[in-house]
Amino acid sequence: MGALPKLSVLKGDLDVLAIGETLIDFISVEETDSLRHACTFRKVQGGSPANIAVNVAKLGGRAAVISKTGIGAFGQFLKAELQRAGVVTDYLIMDHRVHTSIVFVSRTQGTPDFEAFRSGDYRLEPQEVDEGAIKRAKVIHASTWPLSRQPSRAAVERAFQLAHQHGKIISLDPNYSPQIWPDYREAKDVLRRMLGYATITKPSLDDARRIFGSDRAPEESIALLHEMGPKVVVFTMGARGILLSEEGRITPIPARPVQVVDATGAGDAFWAGFLVALLDGNSLQRSALFAREIVERKLTTVGPLPDSIDRQAVYDTINRLANEEMA
Amino acid sequence: MGALPKLSVLKGDLDVLAIGETLIDFISVEETDSLRHACTFRKVQGGSPANIAVNVAKLGGRAAVISKTGIGAFGQFLKAELQRAGVVTDYLIMDHRVHTSIVFVSRTQGTPDFEAFRSGDYRLEPQEVDEGAIKRAKVIHASTWPLSRQPSRAAVERAFQLAHQHGKIISLDPNYSPQIWPDYREAKDVLRRMLGYATITKPSLDDARRIFGSDRAPEESIALLHEMGPKVVVFTMGARGILLSEEGRITPIPARPVQVVDATGAGDAFWAGFLVALLDGNSLQRSALFAREIVERKLTTVGPLPDSIDRQAVYDTINRLANEEMA
Repeated sequence: MGALPKLSVLKGDLDVLAIGETLIDFISVEETDSLRHACTFRKVQGGSPANIAVNVAKLGGRAAVISKTGIGAFGQFLKAELQRAGVVTDYLIMDHRVHTSIVFVSRTQGTPDFEAFRSGDYRLEPQEVDEGAIKRAKVIHASTWPLSRQPSRAAVERAFQLAHQHGKIISLDPNYSPQIWPDYREAKDVLRRMLGYATITKPSLDDARRIFGSDRAPEESIALLHEMGPKVVVFTMGARGILLSEEGRITPIPARPVQVVDATGAGDAFWAGFLVALLDGNSLQRSALFAREIVERKLTTVGPLPDSIDRQAVYDTINRLANEEMA
Repeated sequence: MGALPKLSVLKGDLDVLAIGETLIDFISVEETDSLRHACTFRKVQGGSPANIAVNVAKLGGRAAVISKTGIGAFGQFLKAELQRAGVVTDYLIMDHRVHTSIVFVSRTQGTPDFEAFRSGDYRLEPQEVDEGAIKRAKVIHASTWPLSRQPSRAAVERAFQLAHQHGKIISLDPNYSPQIWPDYREAKDVLRRMLGYATITKPSLDDARRIFGSDRAPEESIALLHEMGPKVVVFTMGARGILLSEEGRITPIPARPVQVVDATGAGDAFWAGFLVALLDGNSLQRSALFAREIVERKLTTVGPLPDSIDRQAVYDTINRLANEEMA
């Protein structure tokens, strides 16, 4: 497992099928390090896989989610938000037995304080993963959230098994958080097993520190991740750039200085850009350059990416850049 | 059961011990009938028994709660709010295994849309009801919320059994909500059993309709409630006034026309006023007149009652009123 399938054999009308949490973020209006001091909260659609699906749709790709919400006002709000963004919601399961998962987040320049009230997101069951959805998709993407609990862990595993059978690209975001998954030993075991199915993974420096400890060099973490399965490891280091590794052959991609005004969702912007460019037939390196453009747009914008991004304009920019470098 | 104990035999340094939900209300900033259209929410301390305890403290009484919250920012906020109001929090249980329960509420002139995310509030266990707390209190008060689920139902039953053994006043708010407790048949059975312990109950017209159906006359509902146990039934009908029934002898107490600006929490204001006046040694009728004054202050104020209410000034008002009627 772990090798990238040839694009020519990838079939399906969905570019990306994201499995995992679709939830509501309640973000404090007040800037504060502690939720205790936050008084007012704004409701926004959230959840990393859902955000990646939304970003893919904004880039003109076709994306769907496999997620579970409640049937109440919050579930309806999320479905409407996904549809507004152009995400296919055929596999969004609204279940009267669960609540829509919600997360309270403090708005801060530092590390946000958060508290998750999980319900629907982890109660996705393996039999609710539609094989037809997997067949329709080119990339099956999952986050670490659904791996932290059952039955959603089994649901992701079934999705990955089906994706493997059907020769799909499998991407797994190792966005491990001890607050979401306090059992570190279990997390490491499960991540190891699930990375065994994956073609691509994209750890951030913070992810790698949380998984492997803070004393490892990025190259060591990359080697450990390759051993677990993925042939492609995209190691993002913020202002220090990206290490793109294909079976251990590492290409560094520098970050460019930008005026960061809002870093929330930068990782999801990267994933969407990278996958869309890869499915367009670009090399890993060119896909990473494309993703870097999308991330920079995110970092320099308050709030989410604009509703529609001209993909060709992004290619024009990276082509110009390549020409300048050759000149 | 069901008779009012003589005040002279009531011992304890706590006037009211309220058992049930202490939670956070997230109230929409926007005025809307549907949570789906609400975007921004303000966090306030809530839960009917907790609000009654707060109101008792504002009236200069000594109140405590038996409730369960999580240990995070929201549980800490609630504890601080109760303490700020002067409520004894010795029996507030903060449990790392639960979340603090939260309720989203739409702010509206009509019937508010709400969605409850329950966790800590119903996970109060019978062994967490401290017999020492019961002994310290003159009135043990509970709401219907904790009866709707286990183990909190068993916790309230244990509290009521201990309260009965120790000869306390037991009050039960029959604030039944089908959304909180969809199993109507179970609700009726449990309420019947728990009302068997109660000395006092205070149904509103809406409560009575939800419990007994919409076609009953208030007098019929009062008779049915007396049959279940309580010797005192205070039947509140909003602008139509109050029917005060002691073992079936009904005294009507008219409402006075007021400019209602915020009806939220009116029932909890009534309970607090009624119990405080009763413990001051007043007759049921005079206690209801005292409670009416407190409710009117609530109805004509946006937000909660003021932090401190001069109890003597309220008595002066009702004494003046009595003199005017006699003149």
